[in-house]
Amino acid sequence: MVSLRSTGPLAVGGPLSMHLAGAETNVAIGLARLGHRTAWVGRVSDDELGEFVLRQLRAEGVGTDGVRRDAERPAGLMFLERRTADVTRVRYHRAGSAGSALHTDDVAAPLAAGARVLHLTGITPALSDSARAATTFAARQAAASGATVSLDVNYRAGLWSRAAARAALTPLAGYASIVIASADELDLLAEPGADEPTAVAGLLRRGVRTVLVKLGADGARAYTHDGVQQLAAVPVTAVDTVGAGDAFTAGYLSGHLDGLDLIDRLRRAVALGAFAVTAHGDWEGLPRRDELSLLTGNAAGTTLR
Amino acid sequence: MVSLRSTGPLAVGGPLSMHLAGAETNVAIGLARLGHRTAWVGRVSDDELGEFVLRQLRAEGVGTDGVRRDAERPAGLMFLERRTADVTRVRYHRAGSAGSALHTDDVAAPLAAGARVLHLTGITPALSDSARAATTFAARQAAASGATVSLDVNYRAGLWSRAAARAALTPLAGYASIVIASADELDLLAEPGADEPTAVAGLLRRGVRTVLVKLGADGARAYTHDGVQQLAAVPVTAVDTVGAGDAFTAGYLSGHLDGLDLIDRLRRAVALGAFAVTAHGDWEGLPRRDELSLLTGNAAGTTLR
Amino acid sequence: MVSLRSTGPLAVGGPLSMHLAGAETNVAIGLARLGHRTAWVGRVSDDELGEFVLRQLRAEGVGTDGVRRDAERPAGLMFLERRTADVTRVRYHRAGSAGSALHTDDVAAPLAAGARVLHLTGITPALSDSARAATTFAARQAAASGATVSLDVNYRAGLWSRAAARAALTPLAGYASIVIASADELDLLAEPGADEPTAVAGLLRRGVRTVLVKLGADGARAYTHDGVQQLAAVPVTAVDTVGAGDAFTAGYLSGHLDGLDLIDRLRRAVALGAFAVTAHGDWEGLPRRDELSLLTGNAAGTTLR
Amino acid sequence: MVSLRSTGPLAVGGPLSMHLAGAETNVAIGLARLGHRTAWVGRVSDDELGEFVLRQLRAEGVGTDGVRRDAERPAGLMFLERRTADVTRVRYHRAGSAGSALHTDDVAAPLAAGARVLHLTGITPALSDSARAATTFAARQAAASGATVSLDVNYRAGLWSRAAARAALTPLAGYASIVIASADELDLLAEPGADEPTAVAGLLRRGVRTVLVKLGADGARAYTHDGVQQLAAVPVTAVDTVGAGDAFTAGYLSGHLDGLDLIDRLRRAVALGAFAVTAHGDWEGLPRRDELSLLTGNAAGTTLR
Amino acid sequence: MVSLRSTGPLAVGGPLSMHLAGAETNVAIGLARLGHRTAWVGRVSDDELGEFVLRQLRAEGVGTDGVRRDAERPAGLMFLERRTADVTRVRYHRAGSAGSALHTDDVAAPLAAGARVLHLTGITPALSDSARAATTFAARQAAASGATVSLDVNYRAGLWSRAAARAALTPLAGYASIVIASADELDLLAEPGADEPTAVAGLLRRGVRTVLVKLGADGARAYTHDGVQQLAAVPVTAVDTVGAGDAFTAGYLSGHLDGLDLIDRLRRAVALGAFAVTAHGDWEGLPRRDELSLLTGNAAGTTLR
Amino acid sequence: MVSLRSTGPLAVGGPLSMHLAGAETNVAIGLARLGHRTAWVGRVSDDELGEFVLRQLRAEGVGTDGVRRDAERPAGLMFLERRTADVTRVRYHRAGSAGSALHTDDVAAPLAAGARVLHLTGITPALSDSARAATTFAARQAAASGATVSLDVNYRAGLWSRAAARAALTPLAGYASIVIASADELDLLAEPGADEPTAVAGLLRRGVRTVLVKLGADGARAYTHDGVQQLAAVPVTAVDTVGAGDAFTAGYLSGHLDGLDLIDRLRRAVALGAFAVTAHGDWEGLPRRDELSLLTGNAAGTTLR
Repeated sequence: MVSLRSTGPLAVGGPLSMHLAGAETNVAIGLARLGHRTAWVGRVSDDELGEFVLRQLRAEGVGTDGVRRDAERPAGLMFLERRTADVTRVRYHRAGSAGSALHTDDVAAPLAAGARVLHLTGITPALSDSARAATTFAARQAAASGATVSLDVNYRAGLWSRAAARAALTPLAGYASIVIASADELDLLAEPGADEPTAVAGLLRRGVRTVLVKLGADGARAYTHDGVQQLAAVPVTAVDTVGAGDAFTAGYLSGHLDGLDLIDRLRRAVALGAFAVTAHGDWEGLPRRDELSLLTGNAAGTTLR
Repeated sequence: MVSLRSTGPLAVGGPLSMHLAGAETNVAIGLARLGHRTAWVGRVSDDELGEFVLRQLRAEGVGTDGVRRDAERPAGLMFLERRTADVTRVRYHRAGSAGSALHTDDVAAPLAAGARVLHLTGITPALSDSARAATTFAARQAAASGATVSLDVNYRAGLWSRAAARAALTPLAGYASIVIASADELDLLAEPGADEPTAVAGLLRRGVRTVLVKLGADGARAYTHDGVQQLAAVPVTAVDTVGAGDAFTAGYLSGHLDGLDLIDRLRRAVALGAFAVTAHGDWEGLPRRDELSLLTGNAAGTTLR
Repeated sequence: MVSLRSTGPLAVGGPLSMHLAGAETNVAIGLARLGHRTAWVGRVSDDELGEFVLRQLRAEGVGTDGVRRDAERPAGLMFLERRTADVTRVRYHRAGSAGSALHTDDVAAPLAAGARVLHLTGITPALSDSARAATTFAARQAAASGATVSLDVNYRAGLWSRAAARAALTPLAGYASIVIASADELDLLAEPGADEPTAVAGLLRRGVRTVLVKLGADGARAYTHDGVQQLAAVPVTAVDTVGAGDAFTAGYLSGHLDGLDLIDRLRRAVALGAFAVTAHGDWEGLPRRDELSLLTGNAAGTTLR
Repeated sequence: MVSLRSTGPLAVGGPLSMHLAGAETNVAIGLARLGHRTAWVGRVSDDELGEFVLRQLRAEGVGTDGVRRDAERPAGLMFLERRTADVTRVRYHRAGSAGSALHTDDVAAPLAAGARVLHLTGITPALSDSARAATTFAARQAAASGATVSLDVNYRAGLWSRAAARAALTPLAGYASIVIASADELDLLAEPGADEPTAVAGLLRRGVRTVLVKLGADGARAYTHDGVQQLAAVPVTAVDTVGAGDAFTAGYLSGHLDGLDLIDRLRRAVALGAFAVTAHGDWEGLPRRDELSLLTGNAAGTTLR
Repeated sequence: MVSLRSTGPLAVGGPLSMHLAGAETNVAIGLARLGHRTAWVGRVSDDELGEFVLRQLRAEGVGTDGVRRDAERPAGLMFLERRTADVTRVRYHRAGSAGSALHTDDVAAPLAAGARVLHLTGITPALSDSARAATTFAARQAAASGATVSLDVNYRAGLWSRAAARAALTPLAGYASIVIASADELDLLAEPGADEPTAVAGLLRRGVRTVLVKLGADGARAYTHDGVQQLAAVPVTAVDTVGAGDAFTAGYLSGHLDGLDLIDRLRRAVALGAFAVTAHGDWEGLPRRDELSLLTGNAAGTTLR
Repeated sequence: MVSLRSTGPLAVGGPLSMHLAGAETNVAIGLARLGHRTAWVGRVSDDELGEFVLRQLRAEGVGTDGVRRDAERPAGLMFLERRTADVTRVRYHRAGSAGSALHTDDVAAPLAAGARVLHLTGITPALSDSARAATTFAARQAAASGATVSLDVNYRAGLWSRAAARAALTPLAGYASIVIASADELDLLAEPGADEPTAVAGLLRRGVRTVLVKLGADGARAYTHDGVQQLAAVPVTAVDTVGAGDAFTAGYLSGHLDGLDLIDRLRRAVALGAFAVTAHGDWEGLPRRDELSLLTGNAAGTTLR
């Protein structure tokens, strides 16, 4: 998907900047920057905007062999309006887009190639029936093959109702080892209105190994069968919170792939979240491995070397 | 519709500028700048892009009382890519847009308010069945009420086939007093492959009073029952040809409204075409009445006053 | 008036952005965005800068029928220099401008058309003798016709002395129902050095119904014969305080026109002030009616829909 | 003076760039870049725009010791609108500016310091009575002291009538050794309607040694008592003709100061004119001495070194 | 290498844009866009500029497995100054850069992986002794393994003298099947002052199969043992000639890899040259395979689809 | 030196802005803006970047008569990357630059002209052996002639080790009357690991009259034989801390030249530091003398005059 960002109110016009956007691509880039081998699977339009998407993915070292070009449908778009210094508004143009036409056939071959981790979000199943089917298929196949399935709820009110999301995502969570949600998304994987302990307990009972609750500026909590751990966010100057959740997820999965223990996975997760909010763009500020300690310790401030 | 313009190849990214776009709005602005009272009728999205469209129309003094906001559908978009210095490519994102949902109900009330001239293009009927019905309804009503109906063929290959266009536009032309087309569009109002004299003769026989053939840098021809007149284009430095045809039409209709004779209408038409091509943007360079002579005579060059 | 804004120290150059500026136009736009019917009366130059001013007013839906073009005089200008992150400096180029030549004749006809509210500021009377006469004439006529006259002191040290301002504004306040001032401007409507209670009491005695004291980041106080009410400002990230007072006034007048009671008028006033400071530009960030709650409640942060 | 340049029609807004402007400063910069010692005498505002002017002059190595700051008056401005690709329009805001208040007192001391050449234009005397007096005073003093006085007619229709210009400039030309004019300005130094030979003959009779007639893209002619020489312009891609005449003058005066013979002075003059038109800005593209041959011979095109 | 481009004279400052640059990377990108599998071998700095270079190469699908990061040396830079509309000047900052430290060890492994074509330029051997040795080693190895070696003379006067270039490049040409040169570079592969036929004959005698002489706007000539063929350039609006030669080479090599006959290889070569000059940037405008016909036939002008 | 500034992560590209940079030039500009006569001595490249440096110095009124152009070496560069909102990274390209080739011969003549104060930094001696020799020579000569020598440690880890810096700077400090350092630089002028009191005592014993310890946001301490004084920083919104130390030094030296007592020198020093951090650029935000009180007292906020 391509995001078009304004620097002020859209209604009065002004230049827009083009960015690759998408929760799954954000996570893939976050992991690739840390040196993990990643690939993104999806559909992009067979036009210049699709080329733009592919150029950005390749630039970041994300594998694109599993990407299908769709000659019939336009690119999905998202207008990201900086309405005020504190309020950013998003408007999707995704109905009928190439990405929304994702089909089980698109994901079968890439899945067959195997992966240690499959990361899914609750956005793709909201796009269309076929995309929902493809997501479920992917989760089932990956789980069956022994891969770790990670699911970020990522509820988007503009795409579907909470009830529809719950109906689709609850079964999907059954395939997941790792579930990520913000506090107000947890009951989309449980009974309506379920509180955090109840919802988490239900997920752990259904086989989820780790439930991560994103708390924004307050950090995050991680639940496992061994209990719960909480970590504060890294204090930084936040200039753009879009993409912070995806960065958090990428950090966590990186720790998982590196075999870190839980608290260190969380530490990396909040570190990546900090990078995301302290730079403009959804993923542009994410760190390479040698930059991981840049926002902590005495490295802050201007480095003159 | 909102056009998003790049200054280079889209695939490598870069800033986009936002512009109001649309053949009919271009014509309306061209007329309004010359002091004619105009209004635009159509649907725009009920979001910030729709606000942007309305702000631009109001800024140019085009009446917007007949514009309907559509809360369900997004704004129509058009990416205008400056692929090379000589090649501009356009990609529409109009399927399912607010504009494409134009309905007969939307146009009935504004039409009832009356107008001396109703200008239509062959783009709107290509957008949807309901838009086509609305266009035909408008043409019929206006013609019945004694208004001058003007029709610019404006064939868009990306929206429909030549056969489909012919099927829709040929009957529409029956309501028109003024028909505007480029040379290769004329047979969309006649038998496939009909040459210019044949196609023109057919139109004049069917009641069209004036057929204008746009020849780009070569100027234009105007056919009436009295014969044909041709006028060369005004020699200027062309930097952006998008919108030139609409400017030409606005100039012609302005002359019509002012009661000029044919050659003077043509003169104003090619003058406006010249303004359009010698400035960036579809309509931004169009002249006010006091600027009409700016590109002719000895006024060219820098005016130091 | 046209404001030319730098993003850094003017002496080192750099691009300037053009904006419509003016205390009265800011208020008119604030009201128009909230759906009230407004018109602005004044003089603008008969050149491209004047066209720019008119385009912006029309774009915002502010009536311009009462605007007179002045073929002799240039547009008024204001350089707005971002000297440091915290210090903005303004330099006026208004002497001899079209706006400064405002004459009683210019306002007579628009006034005759009638209005529920006439809003005046203490800037216009500072521009020239004829502008001062026109302002007084307008206040007297409006008051006589039963309209609510609103007066914002808006003292500009660059235009006149405090003594001259006091001499001109004190009688003007006699026509006003609503007076708006910052705390240090109050004694311009009273004896030199009068404290707030004294100055307010004097105004209420002279027939003013409501005295609004703007306190910037501390909110505002409203005095009536029933006593005083104070409301804190909405906590937002302030990026540009220019225009905040005018936004406050627009909010208050909107509440007045909607028949809200005093505290709700104040609430709307501080809400608009918040919008003004949290966006760049004097008025660009002001809300439409459906956006009024955007900065309050749980709507802050990124809205993903 | 500060020029504010748009890149398109002013009425639709957009960013403006700030430039030092002024016929005399253009000439001074042209000479300074070629290594001649120059100084500019005039008044600038005692604010940030005045600082900007001084920074630019100093940056270019033009002496500013004779510049007087005026604490009362604002900077002179000039809006330079790129109306179309071929038409640039200029609007002055100079009435009441610091520059227009030039007084004989301002020029007396700098003149006393002595100079080989004094260059004057027909713009300054158009600004005010005191500026006209100061110009005449300077011409008389310089001529009396044996300096070469150079006068460029530079007629600006926006500042005064042809009759007024003729009345002021004709006597001024009596002090000049070098007179520069475009073909249609020559009769401002002669009887109204005088043709080129007549006007030139009159000037030579009155003591002018060289009359330079600027022909734009056609080059220039130089008349002396020995006859006339003509030189074609250097063929380049012209992107901005503003300042070309001043560049021409600077080139000629540089040749004069270097003791070149007439044809070589003309050659340098047209070379500088070529630099001026082939770069954006009034003077930014002017050459240093080592760049003089850049546009001629085989040096054109990309130099990869 | 990173090029930093100004849009005007560097001495007066202004923003610079960053671009990947380099004759070999230009050719690699040209081929990759046409769908050929390519890889670039070289050294880049182990810092953010090096990351920038790698991101761009990956974005364009050029293999980077053979790229070595150099932790000691900075990135090579090149300032590309748009001095006038017609004159672009280049200043290299390559001494001591990572790229200049290219060593035989760097190229051995990538070469061992094999390739159908090895493309070399006369720039790399000019950078340092070790780079020259590495180039020679690569040419010898590739030729020995049966690969087609292509050599573009690309003489850079700023890097070495013609004599030094001749001494290094003449033996290198001995390994080449394809030699590319501009007309004035040919004698760098022959006796000083040798004319075109003599130089070409010598090369063909020494085993070169094809000698391509680039003629800029006049097209190109191709010499083989069968004689000579010449093809005119494609007429386009040239806005930036930098990179045109590399584009030409990429086009030729693409035709070679596709097994086209000579005239069709030339046709593709001049087509790519046309794309290069009609867009800003060294390679940004190069075509994908589906765009190859964009500049020819009736596709020119705005495509509205 | 020229600094090239990004507004975000360098690896993803984007425009760079050009700035004059250099600790010594920052100090010289800071003093010149306050009205002190200053000159900068150094080498700059004999190309457009060198011209840029000279233009900026001249623009700011810093004397450039003692600047030597180096035709052999390129300009020194520094990339200043805004990595995150809080982290700025600097990468030098100074090896082999014109500036690094500073030689004793370059400084002899300018020194002979005399000066009240000679300011040196610990950066220049790090650039090369000849630059170190030139620095020492200058310090010795100036001290011998009775000038006040000021030395700012300015340790740059990218240029040399702490041990090498200590070896070079400790003797240099012997010539200094004023030494400026941040807290962690003090032991570069003493034994490794020496604490602040010990290091300061040693310097005072060796003849230094004043030791200034910069504490960033905490202000500064000044040690003399009379004891120590500390002053808090001026509270401002910091947007760019680069150059703050140099501004502090310029403020202190200005107070010294004006004959202020110690606390007032410190006051001016922290005032200039405040200006530096509250504006973008190393020196662009520094105050003129009439602006000194702009950030203190009730002048903060928008000045409408």
